Amino acid sequence: MRHLNVEDIDYLAIGAAVLGAGGGGDPYLGKLMAQQAIVEMGPVELIDADDVPDDDLVIPVAMMGAPAVMMEKLPNGSEPEAAFHAIEAFLGRKAYATISAEAGGLNSCIPVYAAARLGVPLVDGDGMGRAFPEIPMCSYNLAGTSASPMVCLDEKGNEVLIRTIDNPWVETISRSVTVAMGLCSMIGLYVMDGRTVKRSAIRGTLSLAVEIGRRIREAKEGGESPVDSVLALTRGATVFEGKLFDITRDLTTGFVRGRALFEGLAAFAGQVMTLDFQNEMLVAAVDGVPRAMVPDLITLLDRENSVPITTETLRYGQRAFVVAMPCADIWRTEEGLRLVGPRYFGYDYDYTPMEELVGEVDR
Amino acid sequence: MRHLNVEDIDYLAIGAAVLGAGGGGDPYLGKLMAQQAIVEMGPVELIDADDVPDDDLVIPVAMMGAPAVMMEKLPNGSEPEAAFHAIEAFLGRKAYATISAEAGGLNSCIPVYAAARLGVPLVDGDGMGRAFPEIPMCSYNLAGTSASPMVCLDEKGNEVLIRTIDNPWVETISRSVTVAMGLCSMIGLYVMDGRTVKRSAIRGTLSLAVEIGRRIREAKEGGESPVDSVLALTRGATVFEGKLFDITRDLTTGFVRGRALFEGLAAFAGQVMTLDFQNEMLVAAVDGVPRAMVPDLITLLDRENSVPITTETLRYGQRAFVVAMPCADIWRTEEGLRLVGPRYFGYDYDYTPMEELVGEVDR
Repeated sequence: MRHLNVEDIDYLAIGAAVLGAGGGGDPYLGKLMAQQAIVEMGPVELIDADDVPDDDLVIPVAMMGAPAVMMEKLPNGSEPEAAFHAIEAFLGRKAYATISAEAGGLNSCIPVYAAARLGVPLVDGDGMGRAFPEIPMCSYNLAGTSASPMVCLDEKGNEVLIRTIDNPWVETISRSVTVAMGLCSMIGLYVMDGRTVKRSAIRGTLSLAVEIGRRIREAKEGGESPVDSVLALTRGATVFEGKLFDITRDLTTGFVRGRALFEGLAAFAGQVMTLDFQNEMLVAAVDGVPRAMVPDLITLLDRENSVPITTETLRYGQRAFVVAMPCADIWRTEEGLRLVGPRYFGYDYDYTPMEELVGEVDR
Repeated sequence: MRHLNVEDIDYLAIGAAVLGAGGGGDPYLGKLMAQQAIVEMGPVELIDADDVPDDDLVIPVAMMGAPAVMMEKLPNGSEPEAAFHAIEAFLGRKAYATISAEAGGLNSCIPVYAAARLGVPLVDGDGMGRAFPEIPMCSYNLAGTSASPMVCLDEKGNEVLIRTIDNPWVETISRSVTVAMGLCSMIGLYVMDGRTVKRSAIRGTLSLAVEIGRRIREAKEGGESPVDSVLALTRGATVFEGKLFDITRDLTTGFVRGRALFEGLAAFAGQVMTLDFQNEMLVAAVDGVPRAMVPDLITLLDRENSVPITTETLRYGQRAFVVAMPCADIWRTEEGLRLVGPRYFGYDYDYTPMEELVGEVDR
């Protein structure tokens, strides 16, 4: 057991952006919220899944929708607690702790904020080990947990409680509600008992994100390579180093879909990388040969300042390291790949782990 | 107090289509459901609003969305009761009775079905005195009643409980949920105590619909004019008699919007009527001069068989009587006209009652 203080949240925001794989939203606003709550309420108790009593309840809270919209349509600040309490009220039971549904991006910080304000512990882990665009893409779902009862709240005071026959229907209905609320909402969902948290949470991902952020900061201050520090922590590899020279985006489906082209620099001079994305980075191919693919994490780190680059902020002229990191083991199972493998995202080939793809070339 | 039997529901469906003013959906499926429930459970007790104890609760139930879709995406039959029970469960109280939110069209029959299955009385009245397209267009709203807590259910078993800060937000969110559920849902909303029912319900509209249906049937069987029997009951007037020779429709906004042109027959020979609609008939103008406008009721009765014609079934060559009927008094107030007057529907003129407009020409 340890505590998250204000400084930890600085690191968490950096590390969560790395784990966001280009998506999950800029953690900036979540970071400010979490830090403010810690200043007011004190540090957040970070516990292991094993510390949750078997029969006690854990309620994940998160932000749903477009993070960019949340930056203008600001939360009133009570929504994450209200989401937690609404699920408690529906069940007629108090919950023991909260947990992240998504460690990558903004949703790393929202549960910290909620835990501080609620005065409950935060379980060190999440349901994705990264960011994903849809509610069923979650280890809690794979473990058979119902995402409903789910609650969506907006900053005005509107509240919707959703109960469905399965988790795809939670996604369909809550997505519509979130759009109606103005493209973003705060949610509570996937309520679990301690037994279920222990067998389904992807463990230690919040402290991993904090550690990634800390190492990046220390490497920069020590004049060492931030990229190397990330790779050491995540068992990842550099798949490219290049400059963005072309990008296309299509927003018509409600996602940020597109493709960016990079020309190689340094050891990759003369090569071209194609990077496909849908909110998150999906496939990185060098000279037409895939080097990493979803559900493995593909993250871009700015070549000058090591700041993670999201798919929303990709632009001409950016120079970046392209890093691939292995996803959580659960996504490499048959059921996991059915939910989040390349075929789900429209690619006509099977998943190959990044270790194999990168191993085929000179690392 | 009286009872509604199977034969009454035949009449109710005809009369409700007249009060639907071209919208509200074909009552056919609702009629079959209500009649089946009465066969199984016995006649439905129809009570006056004054019979509801002041502190007891009344929960309106209805169908929301596209009635045409419900004809293919059939209800499983439990939704209206489930909507009623879901509101009861949320409030932690049993309700005394149900009532219609909308007497025109399909939603005349859904509460009969619910009352039969639930074994509760049905209050003789509704919140519109006709059909309208949006949830806030309701006398219950005008009386200050919150439409939420509102519940939306589908035939698969999905259930959404909506609580909002005002009634326009109920409309926005529940419309999205209904679309996500496949364009139609069953709803419970506007829960009221007996005191509120007494001061806000538009009284006697279900028995009026039954009576309209009965008189049309009797007139046809007796060789008399069905149109005259409707006009006598509703204080209405014939504004045109003609043949449809042109029609345009636009479905892109989720409503059935359009305009139909009729050339005059009999006493109206040589004149042209323009009929504008948005789900319901909005404005009937003869040679460019309005003869009736929303919120007054404009209904078309087939010239051969006196069957009411909905805006969805308007087509070239139809010959019809166009009848205007005064709306409920509440819609002629300043607040009522703000909600459902011509300006709300995009017309740049004030409301004039049909009695005045028709009085200007030879009746």
